[in-house]
Amino acid sequence: MIGIWPLPGIPEIAAGDDLAGLILAATDRAGLTLEPGDIVVVTHKVVSKAEGRTAVALTDADYRRLIEEEAADIIRRRGDLVITRTAHGFICANAAVDRSNTPAGTAVLLPVDPDRSAHRLRRGLERASGVSLGVLITDTFGRAWRRGQTDVAIGMSGVVSVLDLRGSTDHEGRELSATEPAVADELAGAADLVMGKADRIPAALIRGTGLLGDGRAADLVRDPAEDFFL
Amino acid sequence: MIGIWPLPGIPEIAAGDDLAGLILAATDRAGLTLEPGDIVVVTHKVVSKAEGRTAVALTDADYRRLIEEEAADIIRRRGDLVITRTAHGFICANAAVDRSNTPAGTAVLLPVDPDRSAHRLRRGLERASGVSLGVLITDTFGRAWRRGQTDVAIGMSGVVSVLDLRGSTDHEGRELSATEPAVADELAGAADLVMGKADRIPAALIRGTGLLGDGRAADLVRDPAEDFFL
Repeated sequence: MIGIWPLPGIPEIAAGDDLAGLILAATDRAGLTLEPGDIVVVTHKVVSKAEGRTAVALTDADYRRLIEEEAADIIRRRGDLVITRTAHGFICANAAVDRSNTPAGTAVLLPVDPDRSAHRLRRGLERASGVSLGVLITDTFGRAWRRGQTDVAIGMSGVVSVLDLRGSTDHEGRELSATEPAVADELAGAADLVMGKADRIPAALIRGTGLLGDGRAADLVRDPAEDFFL
Repeated sequence: MIGIWPLPGIPEIAAGDDLAGLILAATDRAGLTLEPGDIVVVTHKVVSKAEGRTAVALTDADYRRLIEEEAADIIRRRGDLVITRTAHGFICANAAVDRSNTPAGTAVLLPVDPDRSAHRLRRGLERASGVSLGVLITDTFGRAWRRGQTDVAIGMSGVVSVLDLRGSTDHEGRELSATEPAVADELAGAADLVMGKADRIPAALIRGTGLLGDGRAADLVRDPAEDFFL
Protein backbone atom coordinates (compact mmCIF):
# COMPACT_ATOMS: atom_id res chain seq x y z
CA MET A 1 0.00 0.00 0.00
CA ILE A 2 1.18 3.49 -0.89
CA GLY A 3 0.15 6.52 1.18
CA ILE A 4 0.37 10.13 0.03
CA TRP A 5 0.00 13.02 2.45
CA PRO A 6 -0.04 16.76 1.74
CA LEU A 7 2.33 18.85 3.85
CA PRO A 8 0.48 22.15 4.20
CA GLY A 9 1.49 25.26 6.10
CA ILE A 10 4.87 25.93 4.49
CA PRO A 11 5.16 29.73 4.44
CA GLU A 12 6.17 31.92 1.49
CA ILE A 13 9.84 31.09 0.91
CA ALA A 14 12.63 33.67 0.55
CA ALA A 15 16.21 33.24 -0.64
CA GLY A 16 18.30 31.50 2.01
CA ASP A 17 15.40 29.94 3.88
CA ASP A 18 16.01 26.52 5.45
CA LEU A 19 13.69 24.42 3.30
CA ALA A 20 14.55 21.14 5.06
CA GLY A 21 13.64 22.67 8.42
CA LEU A 22 10.37 24.06 7.09
CA ILE A 23 9.41 20.72 5.53
CA LEU A 24 10.23 18.85 8.74
CA ALA A 25 8.07 21.29 10.69
CA ALA A 26 5.21 20.78 8.22
CA THR A 27 5.62 17.00 8.50
CA ASP A 28 5.44 17.31 12.25
CA ARG A 29 2.32 19.49 12.10
CA ALA A 30 0.71 16.91 9.79
CA GLY A 31 1.19 14.36 12.59
CA LEU A 32 3.76 12.42 10.54
CA THR A 33 7.26 11.18 11.35
CA LEU A 34 9.64 10.47 8.48
CA GLU A 35 10.27 6.74 8.03
CA PRO A 36 12.98 4.90 6.07
CA GLY A 37 12.00 4.71 2.42
CA ASP A 38 9.75 7.78 2.47
CA ILE A 39 9.88 10.07 -0.54
CA VAL A 40 9.49 13.81 0.03
CA VAL A 41 8.11 15.63 -3.02
CA VAL A 42 8.44 19.41 -3.37
CA THR A 43 7.46 21.72 -6.20
CA HIS A 44 10.46 23.40 -7.75
CA LYS A 45 8.94 26.75 -6.90
CA VAL A 46 9.89 26.64 -3.23
CA VAL A 47 13.32 25.20 -4.05
CA SER A 48 14.01 27.96 -6.58
CA LYS A 49 12.84 30.65 -4.17
CA ALA A 50 15.07 29.29 -1.39
CA GLU A 51 17.99 29.32 -3.86
CA GLY A 52 17.25 32.83 -5.07
CA ARG A 53 16.38 31.58 -8.58
CA THR A 54 13.83 34.34 -9.10
CA ALA A 55 13.92 37.35 -11.38
CA VAL A 56 12.19 40.68 -11.78
CA ALA A 57 9.33 40.50 -14.26
CA LEU A 58 7.42 43.75 -13.94
CA THR A 59 6.09 43.74 -17.48
CA ASP A 60 5.12 41.20 -20.12
CA ALA A 61 8.25 42.29 -22.00
CA ASP A 62 10.39 41.38 -18.98
CA TYR A 63 8.67 38.00 -18.85
CA ARG A 64 9.25 37.31 -22.54
CA ARG A 65 12.91 38.32 -22.20
CA LEU A 66 13.34 35.89 -19.28
CA ILE A 67 11.87 33.07 -21.37
CA GLU A 68 14.32 33.78 -24.19
CA GLU A 69 17.19 33.85 -21.66
CA GLU A 70 16.18 30.59 -19.98
CA ALA A 71 15.48 28.72 -23.23
CA ALA A 72 18.37 26.78 -24.70
CA ASP A 73 16.26 26.18 -27.81
CA ILE A 74 12.91 27.27 -29.15
CA ILE A 75 11.03 24.17 -30.35
CA ARG A 76 7.72 25.77 -31.43
CA ARG A 77 6.30 29.28 -31.23
CA ARG A 78 2.70 30.33 -31.79
CA GLY A 79 1.49 33.73 -30.60
CA ASP A 80 2.50 34.15 -26.96
CA LEU A 81 3.07 30.44 -26.41
CA VAL A 82 6.64 29.24 -26.73
CA ILE A 83 7.62 25.58 -26.44
CA THR A 84 11.25 25.45 -25.37
CA ARG A 85 14.09 23.20 -24.41
CA THR A 86 15.71 24.29 -21.14
CA ALA A 87 19.41 23.98 -20.37
CA HIS A 88 18.50 20.77 -18.50
CA GLY A 89 17.03 19.28 -21.68
CA PHE A 90 13.39 19.53 -20.56
CA ILE A 91 10.84 20.35 -23.26
CA CYS A 92 8.18 22.62 -21.76
CA ALA A 93 6.23 25.81 -22.25
CA ASN A 94 7.87 29.19 -21.62
CA ALA A 95 11.18 27.68 -20.48
CA ALA A 96 9.42 26.94 -17.17
CA VAL A 97 9.49 30.63 -16.23
CA ASP A 98 6.49 31.07 -13.95
CA ARG A 99 4.73 34.18 -12.65
CA SER A 100 2.02 32.52 -10.58
CA ASN A 101 2.36 31.83 -6.85
CA THR A 102 5.30 34.22 -6.65
CA PRO A 103 5.48 37.78 -5.29
CA ALA A 104 4.06 40.41 -7.67
CA GLY A 105 6.58 41.64 -10.21
CA THR A 106 8.76 38.53 -9.97
CA ALA A 107 9.06 35.23 -11.79
CA VAL A 108 10.45 31.89 -10.64
CA LEU A 109 13.04 30.07 -12.75
CA LEU A 110 14.04 26.40 -12.56
CA PRO A 111 16.91 25.51 -10.21
CA VAL A 112 20.22 25.53 -12.07
CA ASP A 113 20.93 21.91 -11.09
CA PRO A 114 17.72 20.36 -9.73
CA ASP A 115 19.36 17.00 -8.88
CA ARG A 116 21.91 18.84 -6.75
CA SER A 117 19.10 20.83 -5.11
CA ALA A 118 17.30 17.55 -4.36
CA HIS A 119 20.50 16.07 -2.96
CA ARG A 120 21.03 19.01 -0.60
CA LEU A 121 17.43 18.86 0.60
CA ARG A 122 17.69 15.10 1.09
CA ARG A 123 20.87 15.44 3.14
CA GLY A 124 19.21 18.07 5.34
CA LEU A 125 16.13 15.89 5.87
CA GLU A 126 18.17 12.75 6.48
CA ARG A 127 20.47 14.44 9.01
CA ALA A 128 17.54 15.79 10.96
CA SER A 129 15.42 12.62 10.80
CA GLY A 130 18.10 9.93 10.90
CA VAL A 131 16.41 7.86 8.18
CA SER A 132 17.14 7.17 4.50
CA LEU A 133 14.81 9.11 2.23
CA GLY A 134 14.24 10.06 -1.36
CA VAL A 135 13.55 13.59 -2.60
CA LEU A 136 11.75 14.54 -5.81
CA ILE A 137 11.50 18.08 -7.18
CA THR A 138 8.57 18.59 -9.55
CA ASP A 139 7.17 21.01 -12.06
CA THR A 140 3.91 21.08 -14.00
CA PHE A 141 4.35 20.40 -17.72
CA GLY A 142 1.94 20.15 -20.63
CA ARG A 143 2.26 17.23 -23.02
CA ALA A 144 1.92 16.60 -26.73
CA TRP A 145 -1.41 15.09 -27.85
CA ARG A 146 -3.10 14.98 -24.45
CA ARG A 147 -4.99 17.84 -22.82
CA GLY A 148 -4.13 19.16 -19.40
CA GLN A 149 -0.90 19.22 -17.47
CA THR A 150 0.72 16.67 -15.19
CA ASP A 151 3.46 17.10 -12.63
CA VAL A 152 6.76 15.53 -13.62
CA ALA A 153 10.11 15.02 -11.90
CA ILE A 154 12.69 17.69 -12.78
CA GLY A 155 15.18 16.78 -10.04
CA MET A 156 15.71 13.87 -7.71
CA SER A 157 17.98 12.29 -5.15
CA GLY A 158 17.71 8.77 -3.80
CA VAL A 159 14.78 7.81 -6.04
CA VAL A 160 14.42 5.48 -9.03
CA SER A 161 13.85 7.50 -12.23
CA VAL A 162 12.95 4.82 -14.79
CA LEU A 163 12.53 1.17 -13.79
CA ASP A 164 14.47 -1.10 -16.11
CA LEU A 165 12.34 -4.15 -16.85
CA ARG A 166 14.01 -4.83 -20.22
CA GLY A 167 14.49 -8.54 -20.55
CA SER A 168 11.64 -9.24 -18.11
CA THR A 169 9.04 -11.58 -19.48
CA ASP A 170 5.35 -12.18 -18.94
CA HIS A 171 3.86 -15.49 -17.80
CA GLU A 172 4.13 -16.85 -21.36
CA GLY A 173 7.83 -16.00 -21.55
CA ARG A 174 7.18 -13.16 -23.98
CA GLU A 175 9.13 -9.95 -23.49
CA LEU A 176 7.06 -7.14 -21.97
CA SER A 177 6.12 -4.40 -24.41
CA ALA A 178 6.36 -1.51 -21.96
CA THR A 179 9.55 -2.14 -20.08
CA GLU A 180 10.67 1.22 -18.77
CA PRO A 181 8.03 2.73 -16.48
CA ALA A 182 8.96 6.32 -15.66
CA VAL A 183 8.15 5.90 -12.00
CA ALA A 184 9.63 9.27 -10.96
CA ASP A 185 7.08 11.00 -13.17
CA GLU A 186 4.30 8.77 -11.86
CA LEU A 187 5.36 9.67 -8.30
CA ALA A 188 5.38 13.38 -9.20
CA GLY A 189 1.88 13.15 -10.64
CA ALA A 190 0.65 11.16 -7.64
CA ALA A 191 1.95 13.84 -5.26
CA ASP A 192 0.20 16.55 -7.28
CA LEU A 193 -3.13 14.89 -6.42
CA VAL A 194 -2.74 16.06 -2.81
CA MET A 195 -0.90 19.34 -3.43
CA GLY A 196 -3.40 21.27 -5.52
CA LYS A 197 -2.58 24.36 -7.50
CA ALA A 198 -4.78 26.97 -5.86
CA ASP A 199 -4.16 25.63 -2.36
CA ARG A 200 -0.42 26.35 -2.47
CA ILE A 201 0.62 23.13 -0.78
CA PRO A 202 4.17 22.84 -2.11
CA ALA A 203 5.18 19.52 -0.56
CA ALA A 204 3.93 15.98 -0.05
CA LEU A 205 5.10 12.78 1.55
CA ILE A 206 4.82 9.42 -0.24
CA ARG A 207 5.24 6.22 1.77
CA GLY A 208 5.44 2.58 0.75
CA THR A 209 6.75 2.78 -2.81
CA GLY A 210 9.90 0.68 -2.52
CA LEU A 211 11.39 3.06 -5.08
CA LEU A 212 14.49 4.43 -3.35
CA GLY A 213 17.34 4.30 -5.86
CA ASP A 214 19.88 6.43 -7.63
CA GLY A 215 18.03 7.98 -10.55
CA ARG A 216 18.82 11.36 -12.08
CA ALA A 217 16.50 13.77 -13.83
CA ALA A 218 18.57 13.36 -17.00
CA ASP A 219 17.40 9.72 -17.15
CA LEU A 220 13.97 11.08 -18.04
CA VAL A 221 15.18 13.23 -20.94
CA ARG A 222 14.86 11.42 -24.24
CA ASP A 223 17.88 11.74 -26.50
CA PRO A 224 16.82 14.33 -29.11
CA ALA A 225 18.36 12.11 -31.81
CA GLU A 226 15.85 9.38 -30.88
CA ASP A 227 12.88 11.71 -30.57
CA PHE A 228 10.27 11.67 -33.37
CA PHE A 229 8.62 14.87 -32.18
CA LEU A 230 11.16 17.67 -32.16
CA MET B 1 -4.41 11.53 2.57
CA ILE B 2 -4.62 9.29 -0.46
CA GLY B 3 -4.18 5.52 -0.17
CA ILE B 4 -3.41 3.20 -3.09
CA TRP B 5 -3.72 -0.59 -2.76
CA PRO B 6 -2.87 -3.28 -5.31
CA LEU B 7 -5.60 -5.86 -5.93
CA PRO B 8 -3.65 -9.02 -6.70
CA GLY B 9 -4.93 -12.47 -7.46
CA ILE B 10 -7.19 -11.70 -10.41
CA PRO B 11 -6.91 -14.78 -12.65
CA GLU B 12 -6.29 -14.82 -16.40
CA ILE B 13 -9.45 -13.34 -17.91
CA ALA B 14 -11.46 -14.90 -20.75
CA ALA B 15 -14.24 -13.43 -22.87
CA GLY B 16 -17.46 -13.17 -20.89
CA ASP B 17 -15.86 -13.28 -17.45
CA ASP B 18 -17.51 -11.23 -14.70
CA LEU B 19 -14.81 -8.63 -14.14
CA ALA B 20 -16.76 -6.77 -11.45
CA GLY B 21 -17.15 -9.98 -9.47
CA LEU B 22 -13.46 -10.85 -9.81
CA ILE B 23 -12.40 -7.35 -8.70
CA LEU B 24 -14.74 -7.46 -5.72
CA ALA B 25 -13.30 -10.84 -4.73
CA ALA B 26 -9.76 -9.44 -5.03
CA THR B 27 -10.75 -6.41 -2.94
CA ASP B 28 -12.13 -8.73 -0.31
CA ARG B 29 -8.98 -10.91 -0.30
CA ALA B 30 -6.90 -7.71 0.12
CA GLY B 31 -8.86 -7.06 3.33
CA LEU B 32 -10.56 -4.00 1.84
CA THR B 33 -14.21 -2.95 1.64
CA LEU B 34 -15.23 -0.48 -1.06
CA GLU B 35 -16.10 2.93 0.39
CA PRO B 36 -17.96 5.88 -1.16
CA GLY B 37 -15.56 7.91 -3.30
CA ASP B 38 -13.15 5.05 -3.98
CA ILE B 39 -11.71 4.82 -7.47
CA VAL B 40 -11.09 1.36 -8.94
CA VAL B 41 -8.32 1.35 -11.56
CA VAL B 42 -7.96 -1.53 -14.04
CA THR B 43 -5.59 -2.02 -16.93
CA HIS B 44 -7.42 -2.14 -20.23
CA LYS B 45 -5.96 -5.60 -20.81
CA VAL B 46 -8.37 -7.41 -18.50
CA VAL B 47 -11.28 -5.31 -19.74
CA SER B 48 -10.47 -6.11 -23.37
CA LYS B 49 -10.08 -9.80 -22.60
CA ALA B 50 -13.44 -9.90 -20.79
CA GLU B 51 -15.01 -8.18 -23.80
CA GLY B 52 -13.36 -10.51 -26.29
CA ARG B 53 -11.29 -7.69 -27.80
CA THR B 54 -8.41 -10.00 -28.62
CA ALA B 55 -7.14 -11.24 -31.95
CA VAL B 56 -4.96 -14.00 -33.33
CA ALA B 57 -1.37 -12.87 -33.83
CA LEU B 58 0.64 -15.99 -34.56
CA THR B 59 3.31 -14.23 -36.58
CA ASP B 60 4.96 -10.81 -36.69
CA ALA B 61 3.09 -10.26 -39.95
CA ASP B 62 -0.23 -10.88 -38.16
CA TYR B 63 0.82 -8.40 -35.51
CA ARG B 64 1.74 -5.72 -38.05
CA ARG B 65 -1.54 -6.24 -39.88
CA LEU B 66 -3.48 -5.80 -36.62
CA ILE B 67 -1.66 -2.53 -35.98
CA GLU B 68 -2.57 -1.22 -39.43
CA GLU B 69 -6.19 -2.28 -38.86
CA GLU B 70 -6.43 -0.66 -35.43
CA ALA B 71 -4.68 2.57 -36.45
CA ALA B 72 -6.94 5.36 -37.67
CA ASP B 73 -3.81 7.29 -38.71
CA ILE B 74 -0.09 6.69 -38.86
CA ILE B 75 1.69 9.66 -37.24
CA ARG B 76 5.31 8.48 -37.52
CA ARG B 77 6.98 5.29 -38.68
CA ARG B 78 10.59 4.23 -38.16
CA GLY B 79 11.63 0.62 -38.64
CA ASP B 80 9.26 -1.58 -36.66
CA LEU B 81 8.02 1.27 -34.47
CA VAL B 82 4.79 2.90 -35.56
CA ILE B 83 3.27 5.89 -33.76
CA THR B 84 -0.43 5.88 -34.43
CA ARG B 85 -3.70 7.60 -33.71
CA THR B 86 -6.38 5.12 -32.62
CA ALA B 87 -10.05 5.45 -33.45
CA HIS B 88 -10.45 6.95 -29.96
CA GLY B 89 -8.00 9.73 -30.82
CA PHE B 90 -5.17 8.44 -28.62
CA ILE B 91 -1.63 8.90 -29.95
CA CYS B 92 0.42 5.84 -28.99
CA ALA B 93 2.80 3.21 -30.27
CA ASN B 94 1.51 0.30 -32.34
CA ALA B 95 -2.14 1.35 -32.10
CA ALA B 96 -2.04 -0.07 -28.55
CA VAL B 97 -2.01 -3.63 -29.91
CA ASP B 98 -0.21 -5.64 -27.24
CA ARG B 99 1.23 -9.14 -27.27
CA SER B 100 2.57 -9.27 -23.70
CA ASN B 101 0.58 -10.70 -20.78
CA THR B 102 -1.80 -12.38 -23.17
CA PRO B 103 -2.05 -16.05 -24.22
CA ALA B 104 0.59 -17.10 -26.77
CA GLY B 105 -0.46 -16.41 -30.34
CA THR B 106 -2.93 -13.68 -29.39
CA ALA B 107 -2.88 -9.92 -29.03
CA VAL B 108 -5.04 -7.61 -26.96
CA LEU B 109 -6.73 -4.60 -28.58
CA LEU B 110 -8.20 -1.54 -26.87
CA PRO B 111 -11.87 -1.71 -25.88
CA VAL B 112 -14.06 -0.25 -28.63
CA ASP B 113 -15.60 2.30 -26.24
CA PRO B 114 -13.51 2.40 -23.04
CA ASP B 115 -15.78 4.93 -21.29
CA ARG B 116 -18.71 2.59 -21.82
CA SER B 117 -16.61 -0.33 -20.54
CA ALA B 118 -15.75 1.72 -17.45
CA HIS B 119 -19.40 2.61 -16.98
CA ARG B 120 -20.48 -1.04 -17.09
CA LEU B 121 -17.78 -2.06 -14.63
CA ARG B 122 -18.72 0.81 -12.32
CA ARG B 123 -22.39 -0.16 -12.37
CA GLY B 124 -21.46 -3.75 -11.52
CA LEU B 125 -19.22 -2.67 -8.65
CA GLU B 126 -21.74 -0.13 -7.34
CA ARG B 127 -24.63 -2.60 -7.41
CA ALA B 128 -22.63 -5.17 -5.49
CA SER B 129 -21.09 -2.74 -2.99
CA GLY B 130 -23.90 -0.23 -2.57
CA VAL B 131 -21.51 2.75 -2.69
CA SER B 132 -20.71 5.43 -5.29
CA LEU B 133 -17.41 4.76 -7.02
CA GLY B 134 -15.27 5.86 -9.90
CA VAL B 135 -13.66 3.53 -12.43
CA LEU B 136 -10.57 4.25 -14.52
CA ILE B 137 -9.29 2.05 -17.35
CA THR B 138 -5.61 2.55 -18.11
CA ASP B 139 -2.95 1.74 -20.66
CA THR B 140 0.80 2.30 -20.73
CA PHE B 141 1.88 4.96 -23.23
CA GLY B 142 5.22 6.44 -24.17
CA ARG B 143 5.54 10.20 -24.45
CA ALA B 144 7.31 12.71 -26.65
CA TRP B 145 10.56 14.12 -25.23
CA ARG B 146 10.65 12.11 -22.00
CA ARG B 147 12.04 8.62 -21.61
CA GLY B 148 10.02 5.77 -20.19
CA GLN B 149 6.32 5.10 -20.20
CA THR B 150 3.56 6.18 -17.84
CA ASP B 151 0.09 4.77 -17.37
CA VAL B 152 -2.67 7.06 -18.61
CA ALA B 153 -6.46 6.98 -18.50
CA ILE B 154 -8.06 5.61 -21.67
CA GLY B 155 -11.56 5.17 -20.25
CA MET B 156 -13.42 6.37 -17.19
CA SER B 157 -16.74 6.58 -15.43
CA GLY B 158 -17.54 8.72 -12.42
CA VAL B 159 -14.08 10.35 -12.27
CA VAL B 160 -12.83 13.86 -13.02
CA SER B 161 -10.69 13.89 -16.19
CA VAL B 162 -9.16 17.37 -16.20
CA LEU B 163 -9.69 19.78 -13.30
CA ASP B 164 -10.77 23.18 -14.56
CA LEU B 165 -8.96 25.83 -12.54
CA ARG B 166 -9.12 28.45 -15.29
CA GLY B 167 -9.95 31.77 -13.70
CA SER B 168 -8.49 30.64 -10.36
CA THR B 169 -5.89 33.01 -8.99
CA ASP B 170 -2.91 32.71 -6.73
CA HIS B 171 -2.49 34.63 -3.47
CA GLU B 172 -1.41 37.74 -5.43
CA GLY B 173 -4.53 37.62 -7.58
CA ARG B 174 -2.54 36.50 -10.61
CA GLU B 175 -4.07 33.84 -12.81
CA LEU B 176 -2.48 30.41 -12.38
CA SER B 177 -0.24 29.35 -15.24
CA ALA B 178 -1.10 25.64 -15.15
CA THR B 179 -4.83 25.56 -14.79
CA GLU B 180 -5.92 22.22 -16.15
CA PRO B 181 -4.32 19.36 -14.21
CA ALA B 182 -5.02 16.08 -15.98
CA VAL B 183 -5.91 14.31 -12.76
CA ALA B 184 -7.21 11.15 -14.48
CA ASP B 185 -3.75 10.59 -15.95
CA GLU B 186 -2.11 11.34 -12.59
CA LEU B 187 -4.43 8.78 -10.96
CA ALA B 188 -3.57 6.22 -13.66
CA GLY B 189 0.16 6.72 -13.10
CA ALA B 190 -0.28 6.58 -9.33
CA ALA B 191 -2.09 3.23 -9.61
CA ASP B 192 0.70 1.87 -11.82
CA LEU B 193 3.09 2.33 -8.89
CA VAL B 194 1.37 -0.57 -7.07
CA MET B 195 0.43 -2.69 -10.09
CA GLY B 196 3.80 -3.46 -11.61
CA LYS B 197 4.30 -4.79 -15.10
CA ALA B 198 5.94 -8.12 -14.42
CA ASP B 199 3.75 -8.86 -11.40
CA ARG B 200 0.53 -8.91 -13.45
CA ILE B 201 -1.54 -7.07 -10.90
CA PRO B 202 -4.20 -5.64 -13.20
CA ALA B 203 -6.20 -3.60 -10.68
CA ALA B 204 -5.77 -1.13 -7.85
CA LEU B 205 -7.93 0.80 -5.43
CA ILE B 206 -7.37 4.52 -4.78
CA ARG B 207 -9.03 6.12 -1.75
CA GLY B 208 -9.27 9.70 -0.57
CA THR B 209 -8.92 11.67 -3.80
CA GLY B 210 -12.15 13.68 -3.77
CA LEU B 211 -12.09 13.30 -7.56
CA LEU B 212 -15.41 11.63 -8.36
CA GLY B 213 -16.95 13.49 -11.30
CA ASP B 214 -18.18 13.06 -14.82
CA GLY B 215 -15.08 13.11 -17.00
CA ARG B 216 -14.69 11.27 -20.28
CA ALA B 217 -11.57 9.92 -21.91
CA ALA B 218 -12.14 12.27 -24.84
CA ASP B 219 -11.53 15.21 -22.47
CA LEU B 220 -7.88 14.11 -22.42
CA VAL B 221 -7.45 14.08 -26.19
CA ARG B 222 -6.01 17.34 -27.46
CA ASP B 223 -7.75 18.72 -30.53
CA PRO B 224 -5.36 17.88 -33.40
CA ALA B 225 -5.91 21.39 -34.79
CA GLU B 226 -4.41 22.81 -31.56
CA ASP B 227 -1.55 20.32 -31.37
CA PHE B 228 1.94 21.53 -32.25
CA PHE B 229 3.36 18.01 -32.49
CA LEU B 230 1.43 16.03 -35.07
